[in-house]
Amino acid sequence: MAPTKGKVLLAYSGGLDTSCILVWLLEQGYEVLAYMANVGQEEDFAAAEQKALAIGASKVYIEDLRREFVEELIYPAVQANAIYEGVYLLGTSLARPVIARRQIEIAQQEGCTHVSHGCTGKGNDQVRFELAYYALEPSIQVIAPWRVPEFFNRFQGRNDLLAYAAEKNIPVVQTAAKPWSTDENLFHISYEAGILEDPNVTPPKDMWKLTVDPEEAPNTPERIHITFTEGRPTKVENISDKTVVTDPLELFIYLNTLARRNGIGRIDIVENRFIGIKSRGCYETPGGTILRVAHLDIEGLVLDREVRQYRDEHLTPALSKILYNGLYFSPEGSFITSSIAGSQKSVNGVVRLKLYKGSVIVEGRYSETEKLYDMEESSMDVHGGFSPLDSEGFIKIQSIRLKKWKGQQ
Amino acid sequence: MAPTKGKVLLAYSGGLDTSCILVWLLEQGYEVLAYMANVGQEEDFAAAEQKALAIGASKVYIEDLRREFVEELIYPAVQANAIYEGVYLLGTSLARPVIARRQIEIAQQEGCTHVSHGCTGKGNDQVRFELAYYALEPSIQVIAPWRVPEFFNRFQGRNDLLAYAAEKNIPVVQTAAKPWSTDENLFHISYEAGILEDPNVTPPKDMWKLTVDPEEAPNTPERIHITFTEGRPTKVENISDKTVVTDPLELFIYLNTLARRNGIGRIDIVENRFIGIKSRGCYETPGGTILRVAHLDIEGLVLDREVRQYRDEHLTPALSKILYNGLYFSPEGSFITSSIAGSQKSVNGVVRLKLYKGSVIVEGRYSETEKLYDMEESSMDVHGGFSPLDSEGFIKIQSIRLKKWKGQQ
Amino acid sequence: MAPTKGKVLLAYSGGLDTSCILVWLLEQGYEVLAYMANVGQEEDFAAAEQKALAIGASKVYIEDLRREFVEELIYPAVQANAIYEGVYLLGTSLARPVIARRQIEIAQQEGCTHVSHGCTGKGNDQVRFELAYYALEPSIQVIAPWRVPEFFNRFQGRNDLLAYAAEKNIPVVQTAAKPWSTDENLFHISYEAGILEDPNVTPPKDMWKLTVDPEEAPNTPERIHITFTEGRPTKVENISDKTVVTDPLELFIYLNTLARRNGIGRIDIVENRFIGIKSRGCYETPGGTILRVAHLDIEGLVLDREVRQYRDEHLTPALSKILYNGLYFSPEGSFITSSIAGSQKSVNGVVRLKLYKGSVIVEGRYSETEKLYDMEESSMDVHGGFSPLDSEGFIKIQSIRLKKWKGQQ
Amino acid sequence: MAPTKGKVLLAYSGGLDTSCILVWLLEQGYEVLAYMANVGQEEDFAAAEQKALAIGASKVYIEDLRREFVEELIYPAVQANAIYEGVYLLGTSLARPVIARRQIEIAQQEGCTHVSHGCTGKGNDQVRFELAYYALEPSIQVIAPWRVPEFFNRFQGRNDLLAYAAEKNIPVVQTAAKPWSTDENLFHISYEAGILEDPNVTPPKDMWKLTVDPEEAPNTPERIHITFTEGRPTKVENISDKTVVTDPLELFIYLNTLARRNGIGRIDIVENRFIGIKSRGCYETPGGTILRVAHLDIEGLVLDREVRQYRDEHLTPALSKILYNGLYFSPEGSFITSSIAGSQKSVNGVVRLKLYKGSVIVEGRYSETEKLYDMEESSMDVHGGFSPLDSEGFIKIQSIRLKKWKGQQ
Repeated sequence: MAPTKGKVLLAYSGGLDTSCILVWLLEQGYEVLAYMANVGQEEDFAAAEQKALAIGASKVYIEDLRREFVEELIYPAVQANAIYEGVYLLGTSLARPVIARRQIEIAQQEGCTHVSHGCTGKGNDQVRFELAYYALEPSIQVIAPWRVPEFFNRFQGRNDLLAYAAEKNIPVVQTAAKPWSTDENLFHISYEAGILEDPNVTPPKDMWKLTVDPEEAPNTPERIHITFTEGRPTKVENISDKTVVTDPLELFIYLNTLARRNGIGRIDIVENRFIGIKSRGCYETPGGTILRVAHLDIEGLVLDREVRQYRDEHLTPALSKILYNGLYFSPEGSFITSSIAGSQKSVNGVVRLKLYKGSVIVEGRYSETEKLYDMEESSMDVHGGFSPLDSEGFIKIQSIRLKKWKGQQ
Repeated sequence: MAPTKGKVLLAYSGGLDTSCILVWLLEQGYEVLAYMANVGQEEDFAAAEQKALAIGASKVYIEDLRREFVEELIYPAVQANAIYEGVYLLGTSLARPVIARRQIEIAQQEGCTHVSHGCTGKGNDQVRFELAYYALEPSIQVIAPWRVPEFFNRFQGRNDLLAYAAEKNIPVVQTAAKPWSTDENLFHISYEAGILEDPNVTPPKDMWKLTVDPEEAPNTPERIHITFTEGRPTKVENISDKTVVTDPLELFIYLNTLARRNGIGRIDIVENRFIGIKSRGCYETPGGTILRVAHLDIEGLVLDREVRQYRDEHLTPALSKILYNGLYFSPEGSFITSSIAGSQKSVNGVVRLKLYKGSVIVEGRYSETEKLYDMEESSMDVHGGFSPLDSEGFIKIQSIRLKKWKGQQ
Repeated sequence: MAPTKGKVLLAYSGGLDTSCILVWLLEQGYEVLAYMANVGQEEDFAAAEQKALAIGASKVYIEDLRREFVEELIYPAVQANAIYEGVYLLGTSLARPVIARRQIEIAQQEGCTHVSHGCTGKGNDQVRFELAYYALEPSIQVIAPWRVPEFFNRFQGRNDLLAYAAEKNIPVVQTAAKPWSTDENLFHISYEAGILEDPNVTPPKDMWKLTVDPEEAPNTPERIHITFTEGRPTKVENISDKTVVTDPLELFIYLNTLARRNGIGRIDIVENRFIGIKSRGCYETPGGTILRVAHLDIEGLVLDREVRQYRDEHLTPALSKILYNGLYFSPEGSFITSSIAGSQKSVNGVVRLKLYKGSVIVEGRYSETEKLYDMEESSMDVHGGFSPLDSEGFIKIQSIRLKKWKGQQ
Repeated sequence: MAPTKGKVLLAYSGGLDTSCILVWLLEQGYEVLAYMANVGQEEDFAAAEQKALAIGASKVYIEDLRREFVEELIYPAVQANAIYEGVYLLGTSLARPVIARRQIEIAQQEGCTHVSHGCTGKGNDQVRFELAYYALEPSIQVIAPWRVPEFFNRFQGRNDLLAYAAEKNIPVVQTAAKPWSTDENLFHISYEAGILEDPNVTPPKDMWKLTVDPEEAPNTPERIHITFTEGRPTKVENISDKTVVTDPLELFIYLNTLARRNGIGRIDIVENRFIGIKSRGCYETPGGTILRVAHLDIEGLVLDREVRQYRDEHLTPALSKILYNGLYFSPEGSFITSSIAGSQKSVNGVVRLKLYKGSVIVEGRYSETEKLYDMEESSMDVHGGFSPLDSEGFIKIQSIRLKKWKGQQ
């Protein structure tokens, strides 16, 4: 059947699901172009490209988005200390904007009227991709097969997909499917579904992929220095072996290496999806975990109290929700992200860290340019900076309101 | 000289400073009563009592406030996930309200017109004590010798105090002073000042008192279960040795024991004091660190997303600031603390934890009563609970606003 | 056709739309019970009841919910100063919870498996009704004909409804339809749609129904006193004619009377619906506008600054959004509303007001019980309460941080 | 006595207080320069200059700061809808930064080591001036005579000042002092103290200075159009007389004229000072009140819902507190004000207003460039933009969480 319904740009992974989707879309009468974003996941891109072409894609795009991922998404998230529900560093959410943006760019360039993805109908990712698509190209049409009755009724389980693959000559890699699903990128890997759906099941030791088990990490700690410039990491030095890295992308990759071998960055949580469902997820965020500890620490030294507090109470939760809910490309996403840099001008300095069996331990910090911290003033032994009598007045003024209140009780 | 200026109730520690203050107050013409609060610090209360009487106190009160400290301050802080500047669990702040409240009660009972303390004029504690005093007893008069010129000009360093002690026959324990100062209670110990004033100096290994060095902690993890009832810990089970603790105070002490031997709860930060100065502090919060991890985790399973978010963005920072700034006894303190319980009604369940070399690792959680988490609904493989088509509408409605925005750019 | 699909409880107004819906539901095979909530709107309930029975309702419920509307919804909203987008007093939103709650109660009592309403598919009210239904009775099934293709495709305009009414012998009142639609209750009336859809069209003078035009209001102001007890109005006195009202419902009705004749409470805005669309609405909220001014004023006198600020920045916007978005019956709705009373304990006093041609002017206020305001202390001429020297210390301490910052610029 | 203590730059008003302060400072051994800021208050600057020189000032600066006041302070406050405690438009606070900044600039230029002002020790203005001074010039020394015991003990009332004036040949204008004090600028006038200290005293009719009594305002409304460009007013048209004003300063002065003759902008409140005291203030803010109504309205039409909400809940209260508490020159003031513009990019359009006897009534609004409002989409009668079925999914997804909750109650 000649493609009569127009061109679709499919976010393709090379796996069973999106391969079946690719063929199914052809079957529906679309011309299908495949798009793979390299955001740092472990993947045989060349093999996937071959496979896509073999099963009918008219064209394949493989795009290395790692640098923009690091510079435009990861580092601003570090600057903002972005975190969801107190623990999750937003690894999947952070990659979605760069993936969706490039997909729309290619779709526009190729004259695709449709884009498609393999996300399920219950998760966050469908929302994140599609809100980004619509914000960037309001006229785009989205095909989400896992929400199309003809598709999801036909493919009720993995076996239906395997049967379809056999029927359509879709090559299937003969590895046993893992009893969970994952999403991987330079920043993190997530594990969910399958056996993890019972929130009381401890993940099996061999599930974790990006980090060594803390119990098997080296017995000797490793020490590093991280330099921040306006809140962005600009240098990592390994004190033991004198390695120094300064390129933004290389620096992040190196932090991943350090964290992975020291068992840093695992979490296991139950979170609340945008869609109103609770779900259990396990995550490894190696380098990101080190950066979070270091950035929080240097801010203590060089960031003004009130700016920090405003950022913490307003910007951080706002940005975290925007990212989690897929609203990076939105009026509020644009406004909030544009405010981050303004809070980070003074965040310049060096944090000294010890990495040890899953922990990131701060051993000291300094800044050569920022002087909010004043050793003499802070000293309990020296009368530097102000008179103790000032404190007396400060307390007395604060107490006026309290004394009246007492009178009222 | 007969005491002519009235009675002072002095918060007394038995150490050099408050002993000199005691004698100095006598010298000024006050009758001095000594008050020691047992909030779980390591202390020879009997010896201190003897010493106070020996140097002139007309009466000594030693009050065991540990239970009210745990039940009225620590557990509500756990329920609220209270934290200051992203890292500090507020250990010193939490003890102040119970100490000050009892001091005022005794002062009222004894007809003291004045209370006194040994806090410096640059720290948070002077503020916390005095705001509590004034709120609880607006007519009380406070003597803060370290803010009285006659006192602080006379005693410019430790040597002046030692000389005064020698002159006045104040017994001095012949241990060398540590090159930092500490504040200890059941919840934590703080280290600051002295050599720690340089924020880039790594604290010496022998400074840490409440926890073993993670590098020297056991190589074998320990596993425990913590049960929460309406957000408060109500049972701890040690899976290895079958220990079970349920009494609120005993439970907390037991968590301290577990955390201490596994090297859990150390931090080293630069924080912003209420008084507008940055200062460097090191803290050990053993049991509190375990509780924080466990409570955050169980909330993921059983607390509604929106209640959590409101609590996280509004109640938690408000309460944390109130505690840090010494405003527990205040209109806002009273209002905010009264709101916490309402957020915790559904926080019932059990968290399974692994303790290992400084880390608290969640291995699973369950609740027998709370059913917000629905395995089937959350499952990616089952069409439980709602139709994928609903997600379609959800996304489309969310996108309306975004599509308009695009049109505007 | 005998009803075979079960029983539906329809929220019925007596108008053309819900009458056609009633008959259409019968046609679909349901038994239909009609439900009318009296929330203070102008309505001939007896005639509507007759009409419902005449066109086929098996039963009609007419419920007077005015008292619970005032006591459970309106007064808490006044206590919280609830307001949406800075101007809208939430009149429609406030009535929905009491209407939906009674509808579910009757449905449960009558064994109805379905409830139905006549809301359109683009507005807020469908969301408000249905979220309340589902929260109160998760198993209920909702029929929203204006979202059912068979219905909305069949009835594309008023003429289709009129033709259907003629065909089915549904009596139609022969008044010309207004070129806008309204929603009325004790608290307010809204006008939207039709000619108002152009946000630049000034509403015609004869649209406004609940208040006299300010230009035609009396030239002589009217003066009243409102007494608040824990933030709720408990007495209104008209100074001119000595009227005194204290019953909660009567009091509110009386405030409406006063406001109406003085032209108080009109607004004309463009607001953001929950559904992501901007829409233009005109509202009259007569008594509610007086209460807002008075309550804000008395809080100035008797509410602590920090409690007020917390309430203003956190509770007020949270509650307002909850109400607007139809989430009154929800975990967060329950939590937030339970916090309001705690903020209002000291809100006791009397406000003296002048009502004049659309304005509510405060002329004074006092409280016999609350003493946070201290004339002497506040006086610029008297050194009451504290020493000017305390202010010196207060300022010096505040400036520490600022002086450091300067050094950094 | 030759001035030996250095040069002081005194914020001088020409009135009794600051004239006495000027002479007293000379008496203390300072050289005194007088500084008068023209921020739009009614003042005989030439006479004041003469007087200052006559009584001993070595130099007098009179600075017209009106334009920077309007452009740098007033319009950003309008953009942010800045308001304190729900009602106060911050008129005094807004002028302080421009006054203090110029004072420090002149002090630096003249080599003054000290600055001085005539604020009392109980108010907000001492804080606002001094925090600005210290932030802009950390080394500056402040002389606040009303907090200096030698001064305030000597001058305990107006009579003491009059006696001193007589003794020192300080000319005194023979008008009776008003029984309240005022602060006036282009934006507003405040009245406080004296007979106003009783919060239940209605201000006398002749107190109000900047606006006509609404009861005496014209019986015929006046109609104007205000154009906003990125949230700043850029054109005012009077529809009746065709006046058009576009210069930022002239525009604001013209709005004042319009508001004054229509009795717009009076309030009477009890507010909470930074210093922890409640105080009663009456204010007239004529033009500012019109701008607030208009700006809130145009935002409804052209500002995205989420950006507005973030601004309303975070930026607006933060900025308002910063201004009120005198922290405009601070890290947080700098950060927050830099965020305002980002929220206002789409705030372009025209608001049509009616001014009538104290009220500002919106009669319509439009924007030629911003298209977030879509008449068809918003229409209840047209199926524009999205399918009603989408709403179904939207509601269903929102209800998932609520249905679970019900199960739990």
